[in-house]
Amino acid sequence: MATFLRTVESFVQGARTMPQRYYVGDEVFTLEQDRIFARSWLCVGRSAELAEPGAYKLQAIGADNVIILREKGGSLRAFHNVCRHRGTRLCEAARGTLRETIQCPYHAWTYALDGRLIGAPHMQEVAGFDKKEYSLVGVALEEWEGFIFINMASSPEPFDEVYAPLLGRFTRFNLAGLAVGRSIEYTVRSNWKLVLQNYNECLHCPTIHPQLSRVLPYTSGANDLTAGPFLGGFMEIAPPHASATMSGRSCGLPIGALPQEDQRRAYYYSLFPSMMLSIHPDYVVYYMVWPQSPSETKIISEWMFHPETMAQPDFDPSDAVEFWDVTNTQDWHICELSHAGIASRAYVPGPYSPRESVPAAWDREYLARMSDGMAPRA
Amino acid sequence: MATFLRTVESFVQGARTMPQRYYVGDEVFTLEQDRIFARSWLCVGRSAELAEPGAYKLQAIGADNVIILREKGGSLRAFHNVCRHRGTRLCEAARGTLRETIQCPYHAWTYALDGRLIGAPHMQEVAGFDKKEYSLVGVALEEWEGFIFINMASSPEPFDEVYAPLLGRFTRFNLAGLAVGRSIEYTVRSNWKLVLQNYNECLHCPTIHPQLSRVLPYTSGANDLTAGPFLGGFMEIAPPHASATMSGRSCGLPIGALPQEDQRRAYYYSLFPSMMLSIHPDYVVYYMVWPQSPSETKIISEWMFHPETMAQPDFDPSDAVEFWDVTNTQDWHICELSHAGIASRAYVPGPYSPRESVPAAWDREYLARMSDGMAPRA
Amino acid sequence: MATFLRTVESFVQGARTMPQRYYVGDEVFTLEQDRIFARSWLCVGRSAELAEPGAYKLQAIGADNVIILREKGGSLRAFHNVCRHRGTRLCEAARGTLRETIQCPYHAWTYALDGRLIGAPHMQEVAGFDKKEYSLVGVALEEWEGFIFINMASSPEPFDEVYAPLLGRFTRFNLAGLAVGRSIEYTVRSNWKLVLQNYNECLHCPTIHPQLSRVLPYTSGANDLTAGPFLGGFMEIAPPHASATMSGRSCGLPIGALPQEDQRRAYYYSLFPSMMLSIHPDYVVYYMVWPQSPSETKIISEWMFHPETMAQPDFDPSDAVEFWDVTNTQDWHICELSHAGIASRAYVPGPYSPRESVPAAWDREYLARMSDGMAPRA
Repeated sequence: MATFLRTVESFVQGARTMPQRYYVGDEVFTLEQDRIFARSWLCVGRSAELAEPGAYKLQAIGADNVIILREKGGSLRAFHNVCRHRGTRLCEAARGTLRETIQCPYHAWTYALDGRLIGAPHMQEVAGFDKKEYSLVGVALEEWEGFIFINMASSPEPFDEVYAPLLGRFTRFNLAGLAVGRSIEYTVRSNWKLVLQNYNECLHCPTIHPQLSRVLPYTSGANDLTAGPFLGGFMEIAPPHASATMSGRSCGLPIGALPQEDQRRAYYYSLFPSMMLSIHPDYVVYYMVWPQSPSETKIISEWMFHPETMAQPDFDPSDAVEFWDVTNTQDWHICELSHAGIASRAYVPGPYSPRESVPAAWDREYLARMSDGMAPRA
Repeated sequence: MATFLRTVESFVQGARTMPQRYYVGDEVFTLEQDRIFARSWLCVGRSAELAEPGAYKLQAIGADNVIILREKGGSLRAFHNVCRHRGTRLCEAARGTLRETIQCPYHAWTYALDGRLIGAPHMQEVAGFDKKEYSLVGVALEEWEGFIFINMASSPEPFDEVYAPLLGRFTRFNLAGLAVGRSIEYTVRSNWKLVLQNYNECLHCPTIHPQLSRVLPYTSGANDLTAGPFLGGFMEIAPPHASATMSGRSCGLPIGALPQEDQRRAYYYSLFPSMMLSIHPDYVVYYMVWPQSPSETKIISEWMFHPETMAQPDFDPSDAVEFWDVTNTQDWHICELSHAGIASRAYVPGPYSPRESVPAAWDREYLARMSDGMAPRA
Repeated sequence: MATFLRTVESFVQGARTMPQRYYVGDEVFTLEQDRIFARSWLCVGRSAELAEPGAYKLQAIGADNVIILREKGGSLRAFHNVCRHRGTRLCEAARGTLRETIQCPYHAWTYALDGRLIGAPHMQEVAGFDKKEYSLVGVALEEWEGFIFINMASSPEPFDEVYAPLLGRFTRFNLAGLAVGRSIEYTVRSNWKLVLQNYNECLHCPTIHPQLSRVLPYTSGANDLTAGPFLGGFMEIAPPHASATMSGRSCGLPIGALPQEDQRRAYYYSLFPSMMLSIHPDYVVYYMVWPQSPSETKIISEWMFHPETMAQPDFDPSDAVEFWDVTNTQDWHICELSHAGIASRAYVPGPYSPRESVPAAWDREYLARMSDGMAPRA
């Protein structure tokens, strides 16, 4: 009951869903790319993916493409995958290993792994040409809890300021120490915002997720982040279930030294704009949501476990994977039905209930970012 | 000869085809959806398709989607397939049977079959929320001669006023009593208007339809509706043919108690904007034309027969179906060639002949609707 | 060294690649169709393809489609493939033979092979209708060195004025007398201009074309056309190679009575906007570049040989074909990588080196044409 009151308190009476133009058509989509995806900290995977010096991966963000690599010195760097000569993509394979340099496959302009231009055939014949002016365009990069975040803004908001509400908040879950046991990529014919709104409420759970609802009753738990870029809370795992798995049993060692109450909770948080993070006692799932067009979204989800769980000879992530794969598929499908309906001339913004206070808060954050492209100030 | 004079009389000297912009590009297409398809009475099939209470079908109209259902009381109703909560499509299967209610698959908002919202979980917690304000958005519906027509306008022109020229006109053909024996769906890479213009003249018949021309000489008959939203007339079935079939033989019982002259006529009418109706002594074909994009059109055609014809053990509609399927395919192909040519920078409006007075009249009706979206007044 | 100096002399210091908007989006693409492709002389193939009277081929140019035919009298003519009645495409097959006339497949309007309308059923019933006003829309056509060029402008710049720098320039190569031994069509996911720029420099050759670079060292030779619509020069065939073939051997008779120096040269010229011409001692390859969209280009390439070479019983063009097919494929791939990179928000115009003076000159010609659509005056 206390929980319920907290939710109601955070609810803005009269909150409504957003107008059709935010979901349909290229105008808002282009503006989102500029004001949100080009200026926000975006999760692009796990630091452990790029373990060895020279290891790199590519990340597409709309029409942009970013190289994320580990330098010889061990630190991670990110650069736009664009040669400063004639704009050619430098790296083509989705992931791989770079030797000492990045060399453009077109005219062999050559960059050090810190982005400095160190070779440019025949450019010395151009009066005033200075290699220093043609370093790769850098992309800001930070690590947090084992996740890599990048930001394409020229002067990004400092990560530690933006992420202040989360710093230290998840220490007990040992996120940095977990290992990925399984990845699944989904394509959804829906606007990306419908995916975020869907994640941010469980009012739909009894209708769509009968199995999940038995394990995680939607009226249990509470939201503890109810405004701003980070939103979410927890639900309680209903006995006799020990975790959110197909069997109801735990699928591995506890991910950390958890206090009693966390051993029976499933936490869910959305990290603006496009990361979703679900924490269970024995495993974590996180999602990276990538808009492809106003009506298509790509979602990468990864299941993480304690390394000792994964080291066990009979390790099988499927009990956890299948639980959320079934649930995800149900969610993506309803997002597609929402998208189709919102495109109709009959659609008008409808009323949110108190049980949808978090999607309503997410919309407020989104609209504030869209209005000036900066995080709203307190 | 009298026939020919009648056609010439109705011909506006100097009439020309429409400019390229009406066939190419999104601007006119969007305007057509708003000014024509969102405001006109559109045929969406046969009343008999939805025989049982609770039976429904969906109809896509551009980005819109309409539920057409039979209420428990027996009357037909139509609603936008859009939940008033968050816009989700309520029904997904193209046709089916509803029990007592329509329930949204997302958060279980529940509507009676007359559109009233009767359940909305947790919305009672929202101050001032009143279910009465959240009925499904209704779509006007009328029946005529066994056909269902819908109109998405908020204040549609009364059907009986618009259809006054046709009311009672086809009584002798027993249209309401006929049954559908076969349906075929076609996709044509052409603007939808080229399909209507093509239907409205037979000057092309000797060139394109050699077989049809032997049965239905294009200089026979006369047009009896030569202006306004309803256009067309008849051609005479040339002896020794008894009907417009592959064999030349009648393919069933007369559709009604026809006067002598109608036993040897094929009538063809276009009903603005997108219905085409071809009446033969022994069967009827009608078409529903659905624009998908400026350059793609979906056409549903259905062949109807006297129920007693269909009840015969050896009933085989193929003699009639094949005759028009061959002819349709020839027509759609020439529409595609026209569409391709009209997209050229060399295209300019060309002159209609008196034998194309009906397409010219169709264009006038179309342009009048596009200019203000309302039917032109006399 | 003299060569190198010549290249440097023609280089404009500070030249940079063009801004992103020229490569991405529909606006510039549409303008290019109007200002360049609708007003320039475009190579559409070889005169010998249409040897017999009545022979025709179709050429798509954006949304336009042109019929190129040989009249009974033996001369070549070109017309828009658009009926003056209702705009229908007259010819549908990509190539074929016309008898005495071109008849529209829709309503049988009939044109002589010189474009005059000679039949139009029922149009005599239209007051004032005069067949003379409804000839096919003509397209200017010229022949040069066995190539057919067309120009869709209503008052095209005279071919002989535009092509003055090339008239007589290639006489020794006997181009008009060569025969096509092989054609290959490529589709490239790149803007068409990147294909032209790529062709116009060999700075990329050591990086991309290791095999070609052994035969044709990029620092050899010189450019002899360095400004205006025609650009290019030659490279020297490095001993022991006798030609640019897989084997390094000559693949046939000399194409003409070549002076000593031309027996060891490979010439390459781009003819604005979309023709590329590569001349070797023993064969010629030419390319026609057809933009399909901002990001897709179709390229037709044809290999030509001395007719006596082709008449030899063991004639096999593959030694020459494979050499350039491999090279082309390498080029198209790097054009695709350039296109992808240029679409990024990180792309800004980059510096050309003196070794890229020809692409820089091509860009200047392009920009001049785009600014007013006419060839720049001296």
